[in-house]
Amino acid sequence: MPDLNETHDPALKSWIASANDRACDFPIQNLPFGVFRRKGQNEPFRVGVAIGDQILDLSAAQSAGAFSGPAARAAAACAAPSLNAFMMMGPAAWSALRLSLSHVLRQSSTLADRLHGCLVPQSHAEHALPAHIGDYTDFYASIHHATSVGKLMRPDNPLLPNYKWVPIGYHGRGSSIRVSGLQFHRPLGQLLAPGAQAPTLAPSKRIDYELELGVFIGTGNELGERIRIADAEAHVFGLCLLNDWSARDIQTWEYQPLGPFLAKSFATTISPWIVTLEALAPYRIAWRRADGDPPPLPYLDWPMIRHAGAIDIEFEVLIETARMRESGQAPQRLSRSNFRHAYWSVFQMVTHHTVNGCNLEPGDLFGTGTQSGPAAEEAGSLLELTVAGKQPLTLANGETRSFLEDGDSVIMRGWCANDDHPRIGLGDVVGRVLPAIRE
Amino acid sequence: MPDLNETHDPALKSWIASANDRACDFPIQNLPFGVFRRKGQNEPFRVGVAIGDQILDLSAAQSAGAFSGPAARAAAACAAPSLNAFMMMGPAAWSALRLSLSHVLRQSSTLADRLHGCLVPQSHAEHALPAHIGDYTDFYASIHHATSVGKLMRPDNPLLPNYKWVPIGYHGRGSSIRVSGLQFHRPLGQLLAPGAQAPTLAPSKRIDYELELGVFIGTGNELGERIRIADAEAHVFGLCLLNDWSARDIQTWEYQPLGPFLAKSFATTISPWIVTLEALAPYRIAWRRADGDPPPLPYLDWPMIRHAGAIDIEFEVLIETARMRESGQAPQRLSRSNFRHAYWSVFQMVTHHTVNGCNLEPGDLFGTGTQSGPAAEEAGSLLELTVAGKQPLTLANGETRSFLEDGDSVIMRGWCANDDHPRIGLGDVVGRVLPAIRE
Repeated sequence: MPDLNETHDPALKSWIASANDRACDFPIQNLPFGVFRRKGQNEPFRVGVAIGDQILDLSAAQSAGAFSGPAARAAAACAAPSLNAFMMMGPAAWSALRLSLSHVLRQSSTLADRLHGCLVPQSHAEHALPAHIGDYTDFYASIHHATSVGKLMRPDNPLLPNYKWVPIGYHGRGSSIRVSGLQFHRPLGQLLAPGAQAPTLAPSKRIDYELELGVFIGTGNELGERIRIADAEAHVFGLCLLNDWSARDIQTWEYQPLGPFLAKSFATTISPWIVTLEALAPYRIAWRRADGDPPPLPYLDWPMIRHAGAIDIEFEVLIETARMRESGQAPQRLSRSNFRHAYWSVFQMVTHHTVNGCNLEPGDLFGTGTQSGPAAEEAGSLLELTVAGKQPLTLANGETRSFLEDGDSVIMRGWCANDDHPRIGLGDVVGRVLPAIRE
Repeated sequence: MPDLNETHDPALKSWIASANDRACDFPIQNLPFGVFRRKGQNEPFRVGVAIGDQILDLSAAQSAGAFSGPAARAAAACAAPSLNAFMMMGPAAWSALRLSLSHVLRQSSTLADRLHGCLVPQSHAEHALPAHIGDYTDFYASIHHATSVGKLMRPDNPLLPNYKWVPIGYHGRGSSIRVSGLQFHRPLGQLLAPGAQAPTLAPSKRIDYELELGVFIGTGNELGERIRIADAEAHVFGLCLLNDWSARDIQTWEYQPLGPFLAKSFATTISPWIVTLEALAPYRIAWRRADGDPPPLPYLDWPMIRHAGAIDIEFEVLIETARMRESGQAPQRLSRSNFRHAYWSVFQMVTHHTVNGCNLEPGDLFGTGTQSGPAAEEAGSLLELTVAGKQPLTLANGETRSFLEDGDSVIMRGWCANDDHPRIGLGDVVGRVLPAIRE
């Protein structure tokens, strides 16, 4: 199991009272990093750390004398509108700053008075992407998702022969990744109506979400080098939530033979905070294969993977339709799932991605693929929940959904908690579908 | 047809004598942009323009008073180790600088003496990528390539039903794009031997090249906006050569259902010079469909496309094996082809890419897909030339090749010429396969 240290101590409390609420996403054991500024102020984006319902402005805290030694050097790398410089410093620097943050934010800290002025309420903040994302790769790590999507296309042979051997992934579009809060117009695309001879250009009728984790690479590798499975952990900076918005009808028509393209590239949204791999250490669990599944090839195998290659992260997806919003109804949950069901570990993704010598760079983003669980109601997309629209969902207010309608918001949440350690959350990723621009 | 102007005048000569050689890639009618520094000097990379066998250092020329007005503002944007800032200025700026360059490099220029000190011989220079590439998209625009590759997999149904409607493309890996001259180790990957039950990790046995053009985007679009076909030209900065190195055996095993991934991401190489769209104007030709092919959907159709949507660019691919190099033999040509055969125009790629609202950014790169011509000997890859290795080539020195061997260099060349206008070249893109690193 990864080492735990004093920053994981479940007994720690913060002088910021909201961080001590047990339902809070950001207790002192979490300390995720993001990039923010105060709303409505024409000021630069900068790095902050979420604590309770506040954000600690790292540069302001640095100026207030919060850090020294390696932590101060790490905080200096955060004096930027992105985390890339900090990411490339590596795990020792990440850990040093986390430890210092844990010290200065603890109830016992003597710096509380001085640091009070470095806090910005989260409700007063807006976010930018936490890092400049050079390349974005989307994996396909849930065998339950791959099987149920495969079943829709190939009922007799849902899972392709490579699935149990290859951590399948593909390159995604980086430029259209946005932070939570995005509202986007329903995309146009070529659609082939059933029985039609020719496609037409029209707004997608099958807009879907996909529940994924985002994985931010910290340190990279040189072109031609490999990241061995024993070293993979040290390259992962942290995780966020990711919604891989998808246009299923565009996808069906375009994706052969080279994979999804415009069906995905119109928008991808991520939650604003990156929860570090160190913060997730108490929630690491054994990574297992089902009986009869082949063992991973040696380059993807390592004792740490088997002991602690998976992470127990609980997910839920909610929908808020325009009617719910207008009538003041709470968003309705569509499904729950857990990252423990993933067939491939995050660390296997890192190693596989580089086995051919492909270079990763600080700030590169992986999507894990849709994280559907084994039960039908644990599906991470409407495609699965409605069996490609054939079994529409009826919502509590009587509305039905096969796919997303204009005005629908999708909210994804993720959190960890177990008997020995408190809840830490990934925060929310929210996005809304607007009507197509037709002209 | 695109407008021609005085920079295209075939009668123009330069005071740099090598630019007046008719076999030269870089006469005064070309004026391509790149990023270079003097070899062995620990100096910054900077923007230059190729002229004959020389490079004009743009910042040095600016300091020497070569430019004024809009051209000076454009040249100021070139005071950087990449072309991105210049690219985002748009066609008027690109044109103004080109016109000024044409003036100061002409035989009649009064600045020849002053600018002489701003030249660096190409043989003394090394190159960086001409731009920071945010996203890289690879298209599949040769119907001849799509058909012959499809035939290897589906003899009865080589071309998929979407091909004639959709400019098929997929996201590629940006981080592993390098400028001409790269030597890379044969990649490892999962390979499934014929009849085997399980894959093994081993060096690829089927390394191939793919002859493509690279298309650099100049100005981008906002997320949610479309670039209409009537506006597409104004977003294209220029073209280079691109070798989309491919590991066919890795590709066969990994590519279903999400497309090529590690089979491509180990290396992509481009030629150092970007030939601007304006320089290519005299070589634009009508874009045609074969009888019986459907007309493009309206969003991909426009009179300019039909009149001048294609570009007459001649290609050749050569191999230099280790044995040729050691025995002083010249590289041997493997095939010739021409971009006029492309099924999709560069401008249709731009419009299609953004029809869903996906945003392009200055410096984004498109690959055109392998540019195979209609004849078998015009194929742009060994996969096609050797029928997937089943019909190995015999080289003039007696060596045979199914796919590339360690030590093989591949050289791609491209140029334009017609009765009314002189030859302008894209330069070469060269790369070499080194043995795998096995440990």
